[in-house]
Parts: sequence; structure tokens; C-alpha cells
Amino acid sequence: MTHSFDALIAMEDPADGAQSTSGAGLGGPRTVTARTHPAWANMVGPYGGATAAQALAGITSDPRAQGRPAALTVNFAAPVDEGTMEVVVDPVRTNRSNQHWTVRIDQESGTVLTGTALLARGRETFTDTELSVPDVPVPADVDITPYTMALPWMENYVFRIVSGPPTAASASSETVMWVSQAQRRPWDHVSLAAACDVFFPRIFARTGTPSPAGTVSYTVYFHTAPEALAAQGEHLLCRAAASRFHEGHFDQIGHVWGEDGELLATTTQLVYFKGV
Amino acid sequence: MTHSFDALIAMEDPADGAQSTSGAGLGGPRTVTARTHPAWANMVGPYGGATAAQALAGITSDPRAQGRPAALTVNFAAPVDEGTMEVVVDPVRTNRSNQHWTVRIDQESGTVLTGTALLARGRETFTDTELSVPDVPVPADVDITPYTMALPWMENYVFRIVSGPPTAASASSETVMWVSQAQRRPWDHVSLAAACDVFFPRIFARTGTPSPAGTVSYTVYFHTAPEALAAQGEHLLCRAAASRFHEGHFDQIGHVWGEDGELLATTTQLVYFKGV
Repeated sequence: MTHSFDALIAMEDPADGAQSTSGAGLGGPRTVTARTHPAWANMVGPYGGATAAQALAGITSDPRAQGRPAALTVNFAAPVDEGTMEVVVDPVRTNRSNQHWTVRIDQESGTVLTGTALLARGRETFTDTELSVPDVPVPADVDITPYTMALPWMENYVFRIVSGPPTAASASSETVMWVSQAQRRPWDHVSLAAACDVFFPRIFARTGTPSPAGTVSYTVYFHTAPEALAAQGEHLLCRAAASRFHEGHFDQIGHVWGEDGELLATTTQLVYFKGV
Repeated sequence: MTHSFDALIAMEDPADGAQSTSGAGLGGPRTVTARTHPAWANMVGPYGGATAAQALAGITSDPRAQGRPAALTVNFAAPVDEGTMEVVVDPVRTNRSNQHWTVRIDQESGTVLTGTALLARGRETFTDTELSVPDVPVPADVDITPYTMALPWMENYVFRIVSGPPTAASASSETVMWVSQAQRRPWDHVSLAAACDVFFPRIFARTGTPSPAGTVSYTVYFHTAPEALAAQGEHLLCRAAASRFHEGHFDQIGHVWGEDGELLATTTQLVYFKGV
């Protein structure tokens, strides 16, 4: 049976040659078709991480792609409707060691996502991780957190919240949790792009109660190579906190580590909120 | 005399109507012309913050702009050549409370910058700053840091490094500094977008010596309103650190506070480096 994530990121090639990139050089927009998947639905429209993964998959599955994802930023411009979407990707610059892409997702209602991505070839350089890993119990020693909201996408992951649940008010919005996939699948950059959005909105952790909130801008910096990611265990250690809530938005700074303590990604968001 | 920053962000409207947006609705690309400014030159090409500011100014000066900058991400795709550049901006979605833009800068060599921006209307909501202000002496009690590199753009700012200079090796890449404009000018979102890039590359703070490095992706989340920014004092408190250096890239997480302790921006980068 196909993993629901593989079904989600499956891209249909342009039906006719006209939609495809011209033969004249490497650049130029190319449109592929994706569709929403019921297993990845959120309260309204799909889980943002799923749509971000579709945007990135449109790039990484492009025959012109060179290198592995290093940076991804997507802005959620409007609600994503259930059904098909056109993913328009364009490798605007291919340099010796990296490749710059733009991405846009269009539906009948108009553009629902805009974004940019950087692919890069790994190079051996000075390596050091400054950020220390949170001191937490191993996943087996943390209880699985029961779902408090019946959202389809959450069933794709198993959450083990160590601190900062969405159900208790706190002076800090920080959450630390172990997250794994309900149906096991080796990690790759596209599934990591989806997983970096697993944090519920930081305002929930402050107030201890859900309220309307939605990511407007979402960034992932990928710190590691495909082989290292694929060799990771199933559990990701995820930590996020807001710096400031003000005028209807808050930021979120997150980090995601592999089970062995390797820092896999730095991820940030700007999130819209209201009703608080 | 025109402030060099105002000269930098001056945009020439399209010379003929054909370049301008069509009358059919609010959306559609519009091209304005900007040019590099010698006062904002870096070692190779302009200071990245200057180019980011030009990208944002192309948006904020557009007659269709609604709201104040909330998020900006630009990717530096190729070196910016001295001279003119076309700034192509497009308000892809205008919602009730925000507006999503894409931006691209083209030169003769091709596309040199891609990006996205979010404008938003400020709304009164829950407000709180979780991140505490670094405990540092007031600007008057910190010596001005002498320039160690003769880079034109640096002369636009006065640096007072409190900790983490680029001239001493350290186990931490964190730098804390006060930064002000050499020629006083009230702060606004565009000048803040430029100033959020004032951090020298974090690898310098680790190794204590300059080496080739360049920002590839640059993000600013703006936490405050135009009036609050304009009322700020001249000095910004700036702190940045890397999480991980690996495979030729490192991330940078930065925060910028106003003189009165208000958190003005969260800013992140992915930076290319080599030779270390």
C-alpha cells in the first residue's frame, strides 16, 4: 500500500508538451499537477506542512533539479481548496554549487502559495553544531500524547510531548516533543519539510486553549545530507518557541533533531492569530 | 542632501505604460528601476541588506501596497552588478487583513534576487514578548568598534560590539552589538530590513578571521508598526548566533531590539561559506 505521504507528493507531469519547459536552456517555468489528500486535511484545507511538501516535491522531482534542499520558504496566500492544484516551479539560476528556484501553487481561486527554494551540493567544510540538544527522556520513556483535536493530518504522526502542551496555559510558549511517523517511512528532505510544521500554534501553548491561527510564512533550513537523513531513526526531537506576539502575528523559531542528536533543521514561521 | 539610504531605495517608475500594471484588477507584475549606490557597496557587489531593502521598497512604494511589512524573504541568486536593476513586484493575493507579494530583481546577467513579502494591517490582539532583552550597557558606555575591513557599506552604520567580535576565535558564534546609522534617519520597515543584515558572517566570530561567505537566503519578520518604529531611538540592539555549520552552509538566528527594549524584528539567514 502506498504511504499516504508518497500519495500526497505524487506529481503528474504536464499532459502535453506545451506545458513543459522549452528546450531552450535550463530555465523556465514548468507546471506539474498535485492534489490534496484526505489523510493530510487540517481544520480548514490541508495541513500547511503537507502543502509545503508538495511545493518542494514539485522542485525536487523536476528533472532539472541539482543538489539537495538547503532552504525553503513558502507563504500561504489563501486557503487551499480540496482537489487539484498546479505547482509551477522555475529554476531561475543554476550556479556551480547551488540552484535557486521559485515555486507557486495555483488553484481555480488563484494563487494559494508563493515560495522560493535553494538546492545545494554538499561540500566538506568546517562542521560544528552550537545549539545543544534539549535534555529529554528517550522516546520510549515519554507517554504518547492523546489527540485533543480530531484533525486528520495529526494521525500521520505520533506525538510525545515532553513539555509545553497546548492544553495548559503557560508564561512560555516553548514546546519540546518527540514526533514520529505513524506509518514508518525513511526521512528525506521533503518529509522533513512537512514535519517541521508539526508544532501547534504557539499561542495555544500560551493560553492553553485553541484559537484561530494560521501560518502565513514558513521557512526550513536543512542542515544535512540525504544519506544522513535516511539513516536517522524514526523519532524527531522538536522544539519551538515564539519571540513575540503582537498586532495579530507571532514568530516561531523551531529546531528539529534526529534521534541520534544531529541537528537536522532550523525552522521558522510567522503566524497570524486572532480572538485572543 | 539626500540620505544615501533614500538615494538607494529611490525607484523609477516604468517609463511607458506598457511596463506598468494593466487596469484589469489589482494583481499583475509591475517593473520599477533601481540602481546600486556606491555608498552601499560590499566587497563584491552591494551589501545584501541594501539589495533586500531595494526589493522591499519596490513593494512598499507600489501604489497597490496595503498594510505594513510583516515578513520578507529574499534569496540572493547571483552577484549584483553595479548599475541599474529591474525590480519586478506582484501583489498575487490581497486579502482582508494582508497582502502577499512576490519580488524579483533582474539585471543583464539574469535574475539576481527572488523573494516573497507579506504586508499586513496591524490589529489589536494579545501582546507579549517572550524573549528577554540581552543585559548590556547602554550605547554611550560601549566603545565604537573600529573598522577592520574597508567596506563602503559599513560606513553607513556605527557599530558598538558588546561581545563576539569578528577578530577573536570563540567557541560561540554569538555577537551582541549596538548599531546606529552614521547619518541619522528615523527607522522604518525598509531601513530595518537593511539593518537586520548588519551581522558579519557567524563563521568570522567562530574563527576570528574573515573567510569567503555570503548570504543565500535572508528573512525578516517585522514585529512592530510604522509609528512605533519611527518613534524608536537611533540605536538598535542586535544579537545573532548560528545553530549549525555543516556542508558549506550555516544558519543564523538574529533578533533586533529598539533602544527602549522593544523587540522589532526576528531575522534569519542561511549563509554559504568556504575555505574553512
